[in-house]
Amino acid sequence: MAPLRLALIGLSKSGSAWAATAHHPYLLSAPSKYTITGLLNSSLASSQKAVQDFSLPASTAAYGSPDDLGREFDRYDVIVCSVRVDKHYPSLMPVLRAMEGGKGRGKMVHCEWPLGRNLQEAKELLVAAEEAGVRTMISLQGRYEPAVLKVKEIVESGRIGKVLSSDFIGAGGLGGGRENSNMKWITTRDLGGNLFTIFFGHTMDFVLHALGGELESYNSLIDTKRPKVEIFDKSLGEVVETVDTKVPDQILVQGHLTTGAILSFHLRGGASFPSGPKLLWRVYGEKGEIQITGPQAVLNVGAPTTLELHDHATGEIENITVEEPFESLSMYARNIGRMYEALANGDDSKIIDWKEATKHHALIDEIYEREKAGQSQKAKYVSAV
Amino acid sequence: MAPLRLALIGLSKSGSAWAATAHHPYLLSAPSKYTITGLLNSSLASSQKAVQDFSLPASTAAYGSPDDLGREFDRYDVIVCSVRVDKHYPSLMPVLRAMEGGKGRGKMVHCEWPLGRNLQEAKELLVAAEEAGVRTMISLQGRYEPAVLKVKEIVESGRIGKVLSSDFIGAGGLGGGRENSNMKWITTRDLGGNLFTIFFGHTMDFVLHALGGELESYNSLIDTKRPKVEIFDKSLGEVVETVDTKVPDQILVQGHLTTGAILSFHLRGGASFPSGPKLLWRVYGEKGEIQITGPQAVLNVGAPTTLELHDHATGEIENITVEEPFESLSMYARNIGRMYEALANGDDSKIIDWKEATKHHALIDEIYEREKAGQSQKAKYVSAV
Repeated sequence: MAPLRLALIGLSKSGSAWAATAHHPYLLSAPSKYTITGLLNSSLASSQKAVQDFSLPASTAAYGSPDDLGREFDRYDVIVCSVRVDKHYPSLMPVLRAMEGGKGRGKMVHCEWPLGRNLQEAKELLVAAEEAGVRTMISLQGRYEPAVLKVKEIVESGRIGKVLSSDFIGAGGLGGGRENSNMKWITTRDLGGNLFTIFFGHTMDFVLHALGGELESYNSLIDTKRPKVEIFDKSLGEVVETVDTKVPDQILVQGHLTTGAILSFHLRGGASFPSGPKLLWRVYGEKGEIQITGPQAVLNVGAPTTLELHDHATGEIENITVEEPFESLSMYARNIGRMYEALANGDDSKIIDWKEATKHHALIDEIYEREKAGQSQKAKYVSAV
Repeated sequence: MAPLRLALIGLSKSGSAWAATAHHPYLLSAPSKYTITGLLNSSLASSQKAVQDFSLPASTAAYGSPDDLGREFDRYDVIVCSVRVDKHYPSLMPVLRAMEGGKGRGKMVHCEWPLGRNLQEAKELLVAAEEAGVRTMISLQGRYEPAVLKVKEIVESGRIGKVLSSDFIGAGGLGGGRENSNMKWITTRDLGGNLFTIFFGHTMDFVLHALGGELESYNSLIDTKRPKVEIFDKSLGEVVETVDTKVPDQILVQGHLTTGAILSFHLRGGASFPSGPKLLWRVYGEKGEIQITGPQAVLNVGAPTTLELHDHATGEIENITVEEPFESLSMYARNIGRMYEALANGDDSKIIDWKEATKHHALIDEIYEREKAGQSQKAKYVSAV
């Protein structure tokens, strides 16, 4: 089979270089079923520079704007958007509009999570994709993480019985009161990329995926406990300014899933406790319990995670081995690589589409709306005595 | 100073033998400033038997009923009630009524937590104590636990800065779907002694004490995920019956304290994860974080707990030493012993009175009322797409 022709939006060695870190390694690796034949960066010069920087063939098309890419959409089987979240909508919309009227049928448009800055943008992108007739994918790649899949497999096997409750505790790194200057943008809530949208979005996605349900009823609590953020310039080695932020650095959810299980979830900003567990995720069932511990909460980007299973009947703990078939790739590139494999192999059940992405935006939106309406009930017990 | 004359309600070698385990060791130890001069058990014969079983002087008064003890209240400086929770009210009320009109002034009445089965009983006991003129004490002895005091000391010192959030995760042992037959009573919600009233009451008390605030606003979630409980007869080595229960085996609270800190609290029934942390309690501040781990959540009964402090500025972890001045006593007796010491030494600021106990009953009552009214908000995000 001829490799799938792929246009990549956002391949660069500057900025967060996420595409270079997480997408490029698989796409250039031996098992890749793709060939990068088009690039779109913020300018024509930047696109041309990337062709050189990443040693792509001179035949690679370099575009200067989303409209330019849109005009040549038919040269591609797959279009991938991996730019900063606030650029998702302006980068993708012209391309999707160029395919309006079902002209994109048979093509795949793949976007990094979050799908745009907010629910509104996600909905518009979803509609535009439907009108273009394209299939869609979202990088909620935690669902491809072997540790997550192993938890899901154990839960589905019935080995720990019906799941009664699950705790998830982690810290995000971001949101600790100081950010590097190249990440200053995450302090602006409306920009749509931060601990809540990105980290909560990813973690809640794979937690729900593994547990096999949606939130049925819940209470949430978001708060910004560090409203002042120091912006640190690495090259100068000093704090260059202090900015205000309204981005949540504390995100709590407790409630019931549609499966009946209780979920207690707390993701906060700032440093993890070094001696750990940095991630503590437990899945407590009628007959046993799974414990997942590791160096970070965001399993979507991969992590050397430890899985243990406690069998209530025997009292034994079993260390569960998690296979990593993609060891040749760097950690961040593995789950993204599995997404590309699933697409190339026609493994449609594994594809996570923009409806799923929009659903997660709807959850984030719901939590923001509840924040406005008042999240917690006033305690009255003290005055009752 | 002459030792304080103490009447003990509930000293027995049968039943849970809590008084024998937790009260008696200190009272008989060298540093004790008390002498047990009266005993009240469920019958005169049982009281007399306890005098012999515990080798008390023959002069020890043995009572057959609370009224009998009430008639001789003036022979005692301290009256201690350490019986099963549903017997608190019927054991104490006649004694308090005998002292009505301020006749109990100068005396101390000490009750195990919970103060009666529910808020109503607690309020009545509180009023009766006020009418009797007695001082009151409640065994919320977690506030005497050295690890708890150390957390409080560090928080107050400002060493970790303002506390931003705290997580508390533990499992209670009870509420795991099987109870020994002598504990069958804990499966009856109205009886008032169970994972929620006893374990939650104690743990929330010392958590709030260490963090230095009350709940300002919160959402709670209680549920009975194991509504069938096997009753296991140890002597027969088998399950003798299965009973229904409405006692919560999942207790979750998330909210803000009056200090502004966020609290995420989850106590569940059943076995802890053996490789731990069985207790995980973190106190995350602006400048550092305390981590408390140990073999059990109920620090009120004592536990060989590990305290670590992460300094955000240096990245260092310090192991915090916790002194245990009462090593000569068995673990369960230490915090109770410290309560007795505080009373004998006139250390009034350490005395936890029945107002505090009633406040905790009001919190439990509030959570039960919220359960009736609907605890969580319905999720709508799935249908929003």
